[in-house]
Amino acid sequence: MQIINESILEFENYLASENHLPQSPSSLYEPINYIIGLGGKRVRPALLMASCAYSGGQIRDGLNAGFAVEIFHNFTLLHDDIMDNADTRRGQATVHKKYDVNSAILSGDSMAFIAYQYLLKYNPEISIELIAVFSRMAIELCEGQRLDMDFEQSEQVTISDYLHMITNKTSVLLAACMQMGAIIAGADKAHQKHVYEFGKNIGIAFQIQDDILDTFGDASLIGKKSGGDISQNKKTYLYLKALELSTDQQKEELLLLYNSNADNIDEEEKIAKVRKIFNTLVVEEYANQLKEAYMDLAISHVRQLDIAQSFKDELIAFSEYLVKRSN
Amino acid sequence: MQIINESILEFENYLASENHLPQSPSSLYEPINYIIGLGGKRVRPALLMASCAYSGGQIRDGLNAGFAVEIFHNFTLLHDDIMDNADTRRGQATVHKKYDVNSAILSGDSMAFIAYQYLLKYNPEISIELIAVFSRMAIELCEGQRLDMDFEQSEQVTISDYLHMITNKTSVLLAACMQMGAIIAGADKAHQKHVYEFGKNIGIAFQIQDDILDTFGDASLIGKKSGGDISQNKKTYLYLKALELSTDQQKEELLLLYNSNADNIDEEEKIAKVRKIFNTLVVEEYANQLKEAYMDLAISHVRQLDIAQSFKDELIAFSEYLVKRSN
Repeated sequence: MQIINESILEFENYLASENHLPQSPSSLYEPINYIIGLGGKRVRPALLMASCAYSGGQIRDGLNAGFAVEIFHNFTLLHDDIMDNADTRRGQATVHKKYDVNSAILSGDSMAFIAYQYLLKYNPEISIELIAVFSRMAIELCEGQRLDMDFEQSEQVTISDYLHMITNKTSVLLAACMQMGAIIAGADKAHQKHVYEFGKNIGIAFQIQDDILDTFGDASLIGKKSGGDISQNKKTYLYLKALELSTDQQKEELLLLYNSNADNIDEEEKIAKVRKIFNTLVVEEYANQLKEAYMDLAISHVRQLDIAQSFKDELIAFSEYLVKRSN
Repeated sequence: MQIINESILEFENYLASENHLPQSPSSLYEPINYIIGLGGKRVRPALLMASCAYSGGQIRDGLNAGFAVEIFHNFTLLHDDIMDNADTRRGQATVHKKYDVNSAILSGDSMAFIAYQYLLKYNPEISIELIAVFSRMAIELCEGQRLDMDFEQSEQVTISDYLHMITNKTSVLLAACMQMGAIIAGADKAHQKHVYEFGKNIGIAFQIQDDILDTFGDASLIGKKSGGDISQNKKTYLYLKALELSTDQQKEELLLLYNSNADNIDEEEKIAKVRKIFNTLVVEEYANQLKEAYMDLAISHVRQLDIAQSFKDELIAFSEYLVKRSN
């Protein structure tokens, strides 16, 4: 995965090389530097820059757009943390805890517009295409986040609803990164479509893996206690598939557990009981099969690209790394 | 003010004619329709559309960009209301009160991106110029909002700081509306600059008038109790000028009053005491003079425009309407 690794390195160098934000008012820009400085895998800018290279451009041509998507991604994390009332992010205080909620709202808002400033750094013909893809994606992501919130309160969620939600909440950003890299490289619409679909389907597989790790992952590897989704009554694929496969008795128990709250049941006991039902119904196996299906779909789009075989091999290796990761 | 009035009418018709937002998820889009439906003077889209007509285009050519700025303006109101913990807006419940804070954050976020979708409805060469002006303005507005928040806690605010703050918080949006209308009409850079400067200086005069009305306005006309800025210890021009002109004793009293809070002084008594000092020092008169100076500056840019005299007369009449209003 030479190009992906080079992209990550190049992006980290770019971040470290100079201040990409204005200095003043520091009360607006400091929280932004703080959350960007918390780190992360930089998957999104790296994907964008690598996609540019795979599509015939240079890795560094994707730097400004890479910064735009990294700023945007962190904007969503910042506002999500307020909405989830989360105290920590990557082991450090969240922005609204370190500063305050109003700072987190306002600095987050300005990040949305700063992202566009970086998309405007290209030739107008490129910029306008990037902005069209980016804006549509941003709205879809807000819709996905909204659905995720709605599903916590709803009894009527189907597997299809869930897949629609994670497509918007997670996948369209990866898909847009792939397409934006291709746009910068000057690739045609057919090529753009294939890399977009690759990113989208990999994103869905990535999210299913995330759900599996959240419930069955090794706490020492994933860096947090597993079972968080169960605690929060998240209607993940695991839960929805379990409902589908369950006997009447198991279904009743699951529904009861997912309607419980911290007041009337011990969290650890709840997680253990749900996990036991999941294990009985082998839903992890179903989830793995679904994940593989989306990965195959993603790879089918790679095969249709008119690029060097070595690039195709890299893309496939990267998707395996993303989807088979244990953290 | 025929063109301005036609613009308002055309914009209201456009709003009423069809649904400009997606239907689903309704939990995301309903709060947006709610706040847009609360009304308002539609000053910003009307200015944009009228500027387009004054600059040689058609009023209706500004509709999509007008919708973009109206959505953006309401996004700022929506998030400001969360930050100010405001219960009502235009006599109705604020979005975070009617729905909840998370809905207000997320629906607000999506409004920022919806604005761009509407700016993308023009030819690419026009769109990219609109987006550049709009994005820079949006960041300046966030900076202005941040300064406004910071000033509430600071003892070191100068009149120059205040003017910088209101320029960003209020004026650059009106300035950008004027410029965007001119861009759509295909006007050259010199013309764009003059209409931008007109909008900016009128915006400053508008905000000074707002501050005067907040402190000295007739409650039955402004639709709220006057004295709100004094209650909130806002460092308006009136306050800063009063500090500059005050005797040592008056200064001490003012500082004491502005460091007080609801626990240790009656609000009505505080407002009356501050107003009395303001009256003794005739700061309202100074504010009116400053307002007139910015209005003259605005009008000087109108005079330099290469447009029909009747259009210039309209712009001047409109600025007088905005700045001399009593509500």
